[in-house]
Amino acid sequence: MSKKITSRKEDYSKWYNEVVIKANLAENSGVRGMMVIKPYGYAIWEKMQAELDRMFKETGHENAYFPLLIPKSYFSKEASHIEGFAKECAVVTHYRLKNSEDGRGIVVDEDAKLEEELVIRPTSETIIWDSYRRWIESYRDLPILINQWANVVRWEMRTRLFLRTAEFLWQEGHTAHAKQQEAIEEARKMQGVYAEFAEKYMAMPVIRGTKTESERFAGALETYTIEALMQDGKALQAGTSHFLGQNFAKAFDVKFTSKEGNLEYVWATSWGASTRLIGGLVMTHSDDQGLVLPPRLAPIQLVIIPIYKSEAELDTISDKVREISVAIRAKGVSVKYDDRDAYKPGWKFAEYELKGVPLRIAIGPRDIENGTLEIARRDTLSKQVVSQEGIAETVTGLLNEIQENLYKKALDFRNDHITRVETMEAFIEVLEGKGGFVSAHWDGTPETEEAIKNLTKATIRCIPNDSTEEAGNCVFSGKPSKKRVLFAKAY
Amino acid sequence: MSKKITSRKEDYSKWYNEVVIKANLAENSGVRGMMVIKPYGYAIWEKMQAELDRMFKETGHENAYFPLLIPKSYFSKEASHIEGFAKECAVVTHYRLKNSEDGRGIVVDEDAKLEEELVIRPTSETIIWDSYRRWIESYRDLPILINQWANVVRWEMRTRLFLRTAEFLWQEGHTAHAKQQEAIEEARKMQGVYAEFAEKYMAMPVIRGTKTESERFAGALETYTIEALMQDGKALQAGTSHFLGQNFAKAFDVKFTSKEGNLEYVWATSWGASTRLIGGLVMTHSDDQGLVLPPRLAPIQLVIIPIYKSEAELDTISDKVREISVAIRAKGVSVKYDDRDAYKPGWKFAEYELKGVPLRIAIGPRDIENGTLEIARRDTLSKQVVSQEGIAETVTGLLNEIQENLYKKALDFRNDHITRVETMEAFIEVLEGKGGFVSAHWDGTPETEEAIKNLTKATIRCIPNDSTEEAGNCVFSGKPSKKRVLFAKAY
Repeated sequence: MSKKITSRKEDYSKWYNEVVIKANLAENSGVRGMMVIKPYGYAIWEKMQAELDRMFKETGHENAYFPLLIPKSYFSKEASHIEGFAKECAVVTHYRLKNSEDGRGIVVDEDAKLEEELVIRPTSETIIWDSYRRWIESYRDLPILINQWANVVRWEMRTRLFLRTAEFLWQEGHTAHAKQQEAIEEARKMQGVYAEFAEKYMAMPVIRGTKTESERFAGALETYTIEALMQDGKALQAGTSHFLGQNFAKAFDVKFTSKEGNLEYVWATSWGASTRLIGGLVMTHSDDQGLVLPPRLAPIQLVIIPIYKSEAELDTISDKVREISVAIRAKGVSVKYDDRDAYKPGWKFAEYELKGVPLRIAIGPRDIENGTLEIARRDTLSKQVVSQEGIAETVTGLLNEIQENLYKKALDFRNDHITRVETMEAFIEVLEGKGGFVSAHWDGTPETEEAIKNLTKATIRCIPNDSTEEAGNCVFSGKPSKKRVLFAKAY
Repeated sequence: MSKKITSRKEDYSKWYNEVVIKANLAENSGVRGMMVIKPYGYAIWEKMQAELDRMFKETGHENAYFPLLIPKSYFSKEASHIEGFAKECAVVTHYRLKNSEDGRGIVVDEDAKLEEELVIRPTSETIIWDSYRRWIESYRDLPILINQWANVVRWEMRTRLFLRTAEFLWQEGHTAHAKQQEAIEEARKMQGVYAEFAEKYMAMPVIRGTKTESERFAGALETYTIEALMQDGKALQAGTSHFLGQNFAKAFDVKFTSKEGNLEYVWATSWGASTRLIGGLVMTHSDDQGLVLPPRLAPIQLVIIPIYKSEAELDTISDKVREISVAIRAKGVSVKYDDRDAYKPGWKFAEYELKGVPLRIAIGPRDIENGTLEIARRDTLSKQVVSQEGIAETVTGLLNEIQENLYKKALDFRNDHITRVETMEAFIEVLEGKGGFVSAHWDGTPETEEAIKNLTKATIRCIPNDSTEEAGNCVFSGKPSKKRVLFAKAY
């Protein structure tokens, strides 16, 4: 397979797809809109899961598991929820196959029709709140702080690897609280956890904000979001956390006896992040040579490649590599030594560049003589010859530098792509030119939001948490506005 | 909720269900045959996953993820495979819901009927081998050693929490090899991994063996199994590993160019273990007081309960507990301090007994004076007063002892329940009396196997790996036999 990748400039969308495929992260399966996550892609997901899971547990959450299939009647109980998801539900109607009567193949057995259809969960609020009804009687049973790692299905018509797939992997937190304020704080706290994860681990700067009513999760009173910016100037919603009020408690009749002895409905949140994050990771850092991974999420952080002509040279090099690998691994760095003879060093260099391995060491006979080695950074594509002495510290130092550099680079790009505009002309000019976030006044009505969307394809990504009060006029209607919001085209 | 549990003697099946429910491991959901795995049960699964995942990776496997839904046509490609699974397939036929025309509710949108039905994976051989066709060209691409953690659906008519549920969680390994012998070795190796996990971590002794043809996985040439024995004398299949020959390679046309330049079909294995293991864990060790967990899989290994009358006493005790907890946690032991004031010590003792926490420390004012504490073992229900000094070592020592004791107890029970018989009278007497495995000669025919099953409800659990050649006569037909096999009633 050719390693050459279409450049971002030439065709950003094609570039993305080629990076994902050629770096062996994922591929399309034979099932419409569903992907196969290949081992290298899944290893990134495992690293993400490990960090997020730790953060969830540190904030008091436990994991559990609820059924994949949801009876249609449960699913319909919360009106705006079903309204939001009905159009993308995969529905199970039968529970048996059989040989066809003409002997020509396998068919659905019509005698095995379900009395009530089952929906494959597109999200689990309904099945979980049906359980919470059985679990909650008194304020002593609250809060419930549960997370689930699961697969979900949303029948999307236009799909793209990681970014939008008919099935995806995610985690969904579902919490139950005695007090409204506590639920709001929980939802905001988890927005914070997502933001910290995105910035510290993915090296992906995000804007923390609140969604407008029309962009809210189906069934939520408030949706908190983190929004990232991709290199093509489009925004990516990277994690959302919802304050659900008492909507699901009312739909599923979940009441508790308060400390004061009153029977009250329970307050709810839910929050989720998915394999979509891998798409965001790819698009934030990668370049025309392929994938670029931040060290903290890279399955392989350092690859070592021997440069040799004879077996004897390889033996000497391998001995040295074993020695330095021990020291480097002792620092918690994942090291791969690629001594395969079937491939040339140049081929290997290109391979690991394509796969985004943060650091590469090349070591040959002259290095053995001189006590040196060559170390190359994936982020800057720069290389230097360094001493073998203290190599473990050199490596960990460089990994930290790369992590920081990737974040800083992405942050600078993002900050350069937040443009304040006062007129629709400027708005459109920015969107069609440099792209990115457009910071503009908005009159607060869904009608204006819709009109701008129809005109420009840009949506309100969020009302940023740090947006300050500022008198102004709506960029579209001219009506008075108190705050700027961020518009962008989005994935 | 009452903590009183039906005794094993009274009603073993009811006892099992009550332990699972009252220890808060799982419960039935509103969806037929599907369970909710509650946080405490899921925490055990997470511990199992962590160990198994480590063992898989140490034996060279990587994780990946394949689609939940499988086109009916893929599923039908391997004849014996579809034959084995057709009767329990959940089938997706539509991808949209809509408001009913009479405005009375939500219905399936008949305009959104799939051209080809999709089956929710009951196992993933077909969708995975469809991918392997794209991945394999040459012997250089082999072996492929992949595992997947996933949910699967098998529409079982009679279900029981953990033991048999319509949806369950599992891992499924799927490997591809150039040589027949290598695939057989892989399948046997994974049987070994399962056996080691069962014995070392679950403290559950198992018999390693091979399935007879009629008990094989649908599509396998050979199924290797590990079989455990429950306290009611019934066997539990705890993990299986299959040598699939070239069946799936032929069905999905997966060929490779060998080193010698020939085009050959690829050899396959698959192997799986599921949340059923939790059922086995419960039934192997638990008693009439509730759950008993082996320390290596216990989410909480030690609970500490303060015995106090005044706030001041509690403060003094809590200071001491903080101090000893640091020392104990430093040894990698998970410690819970339950200082809730709303519950009395006696209630807490019963609660953690019910939940199977291996060790309990009680500490009161007199212990503070004397530098002692009371430590109780869940496995033997015995307690002793020990010095606070060296408590971390005392705790780790006891945890090891408990782990070993549980294994030994289960092993003795299992060994006492393997009975050699020479006649059908003795066979039936054992089955209806003491239960357990019946070791008997069998003539090797499926007809005899079937006849014995119809007569006694016992199946051949396996031909043990360590079964020695021994001339004899089939217990049923009297025909000559070279080996004994193990029969039992089974879950």
